[in-house]
Amino acid sequence: MADVVRADPVEILRALIRCPSITPEEGGALAFLESLLRAAGFTVHRVKLTSPNTPDVENLYARFGDKGPNLCFAGHTDVVPPGDPEHWRFPPFEGAIHDGLIYGRGAVDMKGGVAAFIAAGLDFAGANGWSGDGALPGSISFLITGDEEGPAINGTEKLLRWLADRDERIDHCVLGEPSSRAALGDMVKIGRRGSLSGSLTVHGKQGHVGYPHLAENPIPGMVKLLAGLQAEPLDRGTEHFQASNLEVVSVDVGNPAFNVIPAEARARFNIRFNELWTPATLTAEIERRLKAAAGNEVRFSLAIEPRNSDSFLTAPGEFVDLVVDAIATATGQKPELSTTGGTSDARFIKDYCPVVEFGLVGTTMHQVDEATPVDEVERLTDVYAGIIARYFAAFGR
Amino acid sequence: MADVVRADPVEILRALIRCPSITPEEGGALAFLESLLRAAGFTVHRVKLTSPNTPDVENLYARFGDKGPNLCFAGHTDVVPPGDPEHWRFPPFEGAIHDGLIYGRGAVDMKGGVAAFIAAGLDFAGANGWSGDGALPGSISFLITGDEEGPAINGTEKLLRWLADRDERIDHCVLGEPSSRAALGDMVKIGRRGSLSGSLTVHGKQGHVGYPHLAENPIPGMVKLLAGLQAEPLDRGTEHFQASNLEVVSVDVGNPAFNVIPAEARARFNIRFNELWTPATLTAEIERRLKAAAGNEVRFSLAIEPRNSDSFLTAPGEFVDLVVDAIATATGQKPELSTTGGTSDARFIKDYCPVVEFGLVGTTMHQVDEATPVDEVERLTDVYAGIIARYFAAFGR
Repeated sequence: MADVVRADPVEILRALIRCPSITPEEGGALAFLESLLRAAGFTVHRVKLTSPNTPDVENLYARFGDKGPNLCFAGHTDVVPPGDPEHWRFPPFEGAIHDGLIYGRGAVDMKGGVAAFIAAGLDFAGANGWSGDGALPGSISFLITGDEEGPAINGTEKLLRWLADRDERIDHCVLGEPSSRAALGDMVKIGRRGSLSGSLTVHGKQGHVGYPHLAENPIPGMVKLLAGLQAEPLDRGTEHFQASNLEVVSVDVGNPAFNVIPAEARARFNIRFNELWTPATLTAEIERRLKAAAGNEVRFSLAIEPRNSDSFLTAPGEFVDLVVDAIATATGQKPELSTTGGTSDARFIKDYCPVVEFGLVGTTMHQVDEATPVDEVERLTDVYAGIIARYFAAFGR
Repeated sequence: MADVVRADPVEILRALIRCPSITPEEGGALAFLESLLRAAGFTVHRVKLTSPNTPDVENLYARFGDKGPNLCFAGHTDVVPPGDPEHWRFPPFEGAIHDGLIYGRGAVDMKGGVAAFIAAGLDFAGANGWSGDGALPGSISFLITGDEEGPAINGTEKLLRWLADRDERIDHCVLGEPSSRAALGDMVKIGRRGSLSGSLTVHGKQGHVGYPHLAENPIPGMVKLLAGLQAEPLDRGTEHFQASNLEVVSVDVGNPAFNVIPAEARARFNIRFNELWTPATLTAEIERRLKAAAGNEVRFSLAIEPRNSDSFLTAPGEFVDLVVDAIATATGQKPELSTTGGTSDARFIKDYCPVVEFGLVGTTMHQVDEATPVDEVERLTDVYAGIIARYFAAFGR
């Protein structure tokens, strides 16, 4: 069948859109992929992950071939809620095609990417006789979670640990998140900043404004601490990253009276940071700045949020080069090597292997009438197929 | 009856406490005073004052004599709510006497002061034959409101205008608010600071913390403005006043998310100021400081609360001296001339005549088990009688 029967990424995408897999619901999406992949000779694991206080989540890991190197495509089939379906031009879970666009929740983020790499993987399997035989140059695998849009606790991070516990090794990874900015291929993410959040409380003593010497207003202390926290930039950026950035996102006292000095002031902040920092070094720096600003006068306490995201960077080199070349060949674009934007599951994957992110244009993600051009899904499949070919040419046995 | 029958301030106080005049209720208190004063030859006006959106309030003005000078005693019979009566040792509207203390809501603030000056006034009337005849050295009067503990809109301020509209002139005034600190006579208030409140809003632009260049965080601007507002003291105080003082009483953003840059930050402040400032000059200074701190970078708006309180000062001189002498003679204390504390109705009276505040020890005011020693009510009556005698010796015709 190889080279004659090609997998159709557009029909795979439409089938996935028809599965109402609103996070954390599986919605039939992983069951559909499991049947496709098993039929093509993949070994498929369905992994249900659980923890207290968060929903149980279905995940999937599938591999074709048993030798290394193992090139993994990662992604998720869960989607954010569609909001009121009445606001959509086409039903959000139908997969309607109109004027060259496929409409539906998840079309861009990221059932489109999943459909494209599944199609490329099926073609790879087909070209290799639908079964991993001795002639394979390595393996390809899919790591697909249903918990990317939710708490991200029972998803990629735990699934990677589950694999490591079974000595299942991934050598390189492509995460199919929508990375393109305006046109397919204009941007590939080789890194993302980390994110660290914290809360600051300044303690004072309540009293009447007419008698300030009997009270201790926490607000001047808070002003001093926030000024000290932001007086100097954290860094000036690096070769691949913007400067790390701290934003104070809220300051709250909640005192409804004009004649009362409050007892406490609270502030909350978030830091997006580059590879010069880790959550630990950043926490130490925040403490140092606060202590310096507080002197002996301001009493404060600092609480760092328990779930922070580390940064990741896959430095340009042979792997990034082959990805860029595959993108350029299939799309005609020379992609920018970017490290901008929020966090992604690549923050977990980078602890196991080099990872880059490449996928569709993200502009309509999470919006009403989320849609992607049909031809971009097809070209994205070409990019992923090109990555597979170049990967095994470079790293295969 | 003069010099033989003396008015009993303790029984007047107990009768007043039995009137449940929780602001703005008259509760029978003014009706009781009216009957007492009419019987003693006073001309009594009951003045009901009204305005939209605030409760109607009963007030009373009574005068003995028709010549000047007119020495006025001012006060209020409304009280703050007692809270749960079960928490009181004795019922809050009973006037129980136990171990030399009179218990009840308003015992200190300020039915005690009212009872004492009414008793002193009745004695003055009795000593003058219960009717103002040609031999009177001047007049004494009572200005009593039922709106001091409430919005203070339909009370002293309007009652003074009502009098002025009728060409009724007051020459000097003693406000009977609890002014003593630890022992009756240890403090007389010759002034009070003014109070001005305002709200400050810094305008920004909402956005995602991952893309701060697309947003404009208002919090650094707020920190800058609050630092600029408080960098320099407003003044260093004056001969009779503490330094003016600004307290930022709340800062609020109300952003529940860590990944969103908020659109707006708000702060609220209150200033207690001395006679170097008026609300107008202070507002101009606040604007100047904010503009200087904001430069061209920070967009803000400032709203000054419509109801501010001016300061007042009755500079030491003949009137203050005679009040101090009356206090020292009756209590054995040399009172401190103070300008500390919150605002009082003296802020309205000072626009018409010199005013000082002298009354009971304030420690239990507004609390459960509010109480005053019986003997302090009697000595306070002696102070007010001494003020009347010295006043007419100094200023009478």
